[in-house]
Amino acid sequence: MKNGVLTVISRHTTTALTINELESRLARDVEEFFLKICPPDERSESEKKEAGVRYLHNDIDQRPDGEDEQQRCRDNGWDIDDDVELQKWRDQEPINAHSHLISMMLGSSESIPVVDGKMVIGQWQSVLLVDLDGPRTRTVGIQLMGNS
Amino acid sequence: MKNGVLTVISRHTTTALTINELESRLARDVEEFFLKICPPDERSESEKKEAGVRYLHNDIDQRPDGEDEQQRCRDNGWDIDDDVELQKWRDQEPINAHSHLISMMLGSSESIPVVDGKMVIGQWQSVLLVDLDGPRTRTVGIQLMGNS
Amino acid sequence: MKNGVLTVISRHTTTALTINELESRLARDVEEFFLKICPPDERSESEKKEAGVRYLHNDIDQRPDGEDEQQRCRDNGWDIDDDVELQKWRDQEPINAHSHLISMMLGSSESIPVVDGKMVIGQWQSVLLVDLDGPRTRTVGIQLMGNS
Repeated sequence: MKNGVLTVISRHTTTALTINELESRLARDVEEFFLKICPPDERSESEKKEAGVRYLHNDIDQRPDGEDEQQRCRDNGWDIDDDVELQKWRDQEPINAHSHLISMMLGSSESIPVVDGKMVIGQWQSVLLVDLDGPRTRTVGIQLMGNS
Repeated sequence: MKNGVLTVISRHTTTALTINELESRLARDVEEFFLKICPPDERSESEKKEAGVRYLHNDIDQRPDGEDEQQRCRDNGWDIDDDVELQKWRDQEPINAHSHLISMMLGSSESIPVVDGKMVIGQWQSVLLVDLDGPRTRTVGIQLMGNS
Repeated sequence: MKNGVLTVISRHTTTALTINELESRLARDVEEFFLKICPPDERSESEKKEAGVRYLHNDIDQRPDGEDEQQRCRDNGWDIDDDVELQKWRDQEPINAHSHLISMMLGSSESIPVVDGKMVIGQWQSVLLVDLDGPRTRTVGIQLMGNS
């Protein structure tokens, strides 16, 4: 593509897509800053069922909560109407409310003008995928629209 | 549209447009988290004129402040050069600086690639309009660009 | 352009592009709020080499850190393999980790639908470039795609 727009999007609710400087020390600042203003629940996976959780989303025993989430579970292949399957879903569900919140602060998509075959970002800018609940295998969506 | 990009935008300064999981308990976490790091002024509408306001934007008696905001008021149909009309504008102006700030943190627009007639978002992602000063009737802008 | 999408992007790692109300008092609230949750290191430029820095990115003496940043410095014209040039790079490098972090919270790009020659934003919305480490001369990237 010669001229147009590149759209890039995070395809997960606990990753984010942002544009900034790719610098190893700044990356550690980003991690420390966001975990400080939005700290994770400290419970281990084995303690999932205990009280004292900071975020409602992390009370896995109360979920799926409401018809919306129940239907979404079914749509994604979980037979949550079966007690054994429901427990399987709960057991694999991560304690990651803070990851969702940080993802919303950082954002999920960026649109980047392309001129003469190059993104018009600045010399210190990079397009960054931030994994907030990893490491896991993750994917992004990319679309090019314009003239070749 | 078969292939292209869907652009969606919040059309208000106190709503936000974001992409994340539509889950009722997470929604309450979002509300609690953002109101905690960016708390509203606690004054009731009847106390608008009192001192001790946390945000300058909430000092309604000092506004419209500057030629920019004055002209914008006129452009939007408020005859703020008339004292009675000025007071009417002030009386209807909400105490919502925190809503603006949270809106900026969450973001106003998202661009979503579309392939084979479907948005390429992940299975747990939803496009969410967040009302930060409602409930009110709100609108979004949507544009589809691509090939049918 | 009559119908389409306008894409606008910040071209710097310490500016941000957002959409909200252009109001002088709110602008000061924005400044105060973000500097409070993400405060700058208080060191003066002459104290750059002292200990006690809050952000790793501000430890200029430890940078460029890693092959990525070293190569980026070379790509941008800094011969950091030469000691004198390396020191020149360090001397001009600003103490601005907080500016990067706030930039990521506010976001770098927005996509705005255009219908009948007008952006479909609300009456109180403006497209805002926020300079988080200025004032300096800054540029934005803008692309129009659609039909005339």
